[in-house]
Amino acid sequence: MRSDGDRLRFEISARDGTARCATIQTAHGPIETPAFIPLATKGTVRGLESAEVAELGYELILGNTYHLFVSPGPERIAAAGGLHGFMGWDRALITDSGGFQVFSLAHGGVANEVKGSGRSGGAPGSRVEITEEGARFQSYRDGAELFISPEVSMSVQAALGSDIALVFDECTPFHAERDYTARSTERTHRWLDRCLAWHEREGPRRQAVFGIVQGGVYEDLRRESAQAVSEAGVDGLAIGGTLGRDKEEMAAVLAMTAPLLPEAAPKHLLGIGEVDDLLGGIALGLDVFDCAVPTRLARHGVALAPSPETRWRLDLRKGRWVGNREPLVDGCPCPACQHHDRDYVSYLSRAEELTAIRLIVLHNLTYMHELTTHARTAIELEKFDAYRSAVLAGASPWDATSKIS
Amino acid sequence: MRSDGDRLRFEISARDGTARCATIQTAHGPIETPAFIPLATKGTVRGLESAEVAELGYELILGNTYHLFVSPGPERIAAAGGLHGFMGWDRALITDSGGFQVFSLAHGGVANEVKGSGRSGGAPGSRVEITEEGARFQSYRDGAELFISPEVSMSVQAALGSDIALVFDECTPFHAERDYTARSTERTHRWLDRCLAWHEREGPRRQAVFGIVQGGVYEDLRRESAQAVSEAGVDGLAIGGTLGRDKEEMAAVLAMTAPLLPEAAPKHLLGIGEVDDLLGGIALGLDVFDCAVPTRLARHGVALAPSPETRWRLDLRKGRWVGNREPLVDGCPCPACQHHDRDYVSYLSRAEELTAIRLIVLHNLTYMHELTTHARTAIELEKFDAYRSAVLAGASPWDATSKIS
Repeated sequence: MRSDGDRLRFEISARDGTARCATIQTAHGPIETPAFIPLATKGTVRGLESAEVAELGYELILGNTYHLFVSPGPERIAAAGGLHGFMGWDRALITDSGGFQVFSLAHGGVANEVKGSGRSGGAPGSRVEITEEGARFQSYRDGAELFISPEVSMSVQAALGSDIALVFDECTPFHAERDYTARSTERTHRWLDRCLAWHEREGPRRQAVFGIVQGGVYEDLRRESAQAVSEAGVDGLAIGGTLGRDKEEMAAVLAMTAPLLPEAAPKHLLGIGEVDDLLGGIALGLDVFDCAVPTRLARHGVALAPSPETRWRLDLRKGRWVGNREPLVDGCPCPACQHHDRDYVSYLSRAEELTAIRLIVLHNLTYMHELTTHARTAIELEKFDAYRSAVLAGASPWDATSKIS
Repeated sequence: MRSDGDRLRFEISARDGTARCATIQTAHGPIETPAFIPLATKGTVRGLESAEVAELGYELILGNTYHLFVSPGPERIAAAGGLHGFMGWDRALITDSGGFQVFSLAHGGVANEVKGSGRSGGAPGSRVEITEEGARFQSYRDGAELFISPEVSMSVQAALGSDIALVFDECTPFHAERDYTARSTERTHRWLDRCLAWHEREGPRRQAVFGIVQGGVYEDLRRESAQAVSEAGVDGLAIGGTLGRDKEEMAAVLAMTAPLLPEAAPKHLLGIGEVDDLLGGIALGLDVFDCAVPTRLARHGVALAPSPETRWRLDLRKGRWVGNREPLVDGCPCPACQHHDRDYVSYLSRAEELTAIRLIVLHNLTYMHELTTHARTAIELEKFDAYRSAVLAGASPWDATSKIS
């Protein structure tokens, strides 16, 4: 671990079992954790202006290095004053390394396992060549050959000027054999060293770097990886790679991996953000969670709602909402729920009006923000287990809190 | 003319030549004129929540009877408390009669003449049968046979509960012969009587009705039509139908038609809303102007800007904006211009991000609102000609005002 307060300070303010509340202080302000991180994949959170994302209460968003590398390219973003200046966002930014997308192309989709169905992996014609040096692939935009190595990833993230960069790793898929996973994890550790060496020499002074713990579903590999990353001198740790074939295996892999991470550093669970999974991660002491699901669901007309039996999904594309005068979720403070009913939002969604996507994005991001805000309160009250149980039993975040306090 | 203050009051507050400022008082509040009317075609202004449209300063929006008739249907909207309740809009609403869309299908597009290219007319397989009784056509949604007559149109608009309904008319195309136009205009007048008779019997007590002056490009027909509509007992008059093959002919038809309308009633120019045309209409004493162009342009990445040489269009899809740090329009108070530059909005637009459409809709509707707000100020100062000249010479609305005051 390194702990350069100029880049990042991490202060734990409350504990409840292994769950915790903390503040991650970055060059662009604080992040109160546990926190959900909305994706600004291509330099915007779907349909929202940056100022609106801040108004929702978010202090940290995630930019995708792979997409921004392909278009508009790091030079153009650097010329705009980095991703902050480019998109007019003045709070904290984290960028991924590009590895996840590149290796999803190669492996045909980590994304199609527990990290949410529907992400396209292994697109026709996509070819990725992985060597010790890095990964060579074709641009989805114009077919041009592109190359990402640890050094390229870090230099792109330096150009993006994020407050937190993630190291370039190979994200192994669930179907990878133990041998492949072991060799891949070792290479990821060598890439980690190269990332940190490049960053030490040429990285922005105030940019923090998070390492990524790999090792697939294998406890010994996860243990080795957690140790290697912890000792490498990073500002925080992320849990990456496959977490198993289903939610049960994911829970087991997380329960085994989370305690291997050092207590004093921020812990990021990559790509996981379903309601129950996020609460499970918080219980294990994980701090931040990025996920495409809340915004992707909105595109398909699905709102988050307190219904464990449907995996917290309310499908507004269904015809059954005609004439329904209820808000998407009773008591939700978002504009969709404050001003409109299911009848109208369902109509807009079926009519494929942009307004529908926007209203549901606002709702889903409000819901995730409420979920973590109330989780913080519950931890402070040392009642996180009761809060989690109430949400898992079907309470909204705000109702769950009022039940326990 | 009828003048039931319960439905609508019209008070002229300032004059400058034939241009005028007025207030149209409706059952849902006042409309300060001259005013541009954004389209809420299918029950939403593209990408905006109703509350946001009000925040932009708009007091009147237009719902499309044809689209809302096809889906979700008048019963569903009536059950939601009318279009106001359905879409959560508590200011004034005007609905068109459905005639324009039906007859665009039949005639292959009035829409393709001066009322803006790009509107699809005469879609393959579309068949419209026009009889004295009304128009029979196929739903674009499911092919079902639909029928609109004067009575159907008025009853749908009654269900929508708009503050101002427009009578059902045949919108003749430019390529129609004089004879066809004359016969069509006469039928339109018979339809007008049927609309008013239905409304008198069964229309909402507080809903005002505007008649539509037809007659194509023929002065005698326009004169007859203006007289027929004026004498029929309407709360306001709209100018409809073809206005000619190009902007010059449109200006001539308007200059000939506008003086035929009674001074004491609100005057609506249907479907016209380009910057120069709108100013021309205001100069002739027209009060309200609806048009799809500002929102449609946004969908294609085009922002309104003070450049007469490009018909006030700034095409953000072009590559030339890379690295451009200017706002879309200097001094514009919209969120896109206040927080972002051309480089970013152009990138978003080329990347087909929803955020781009939204930012440009916000900009374009702000621009149109500024254009009419400053026109009102200029009329009050009796300097409308100077204002119009400054805008036509390339000044933004706010710069034009500061030049003349």
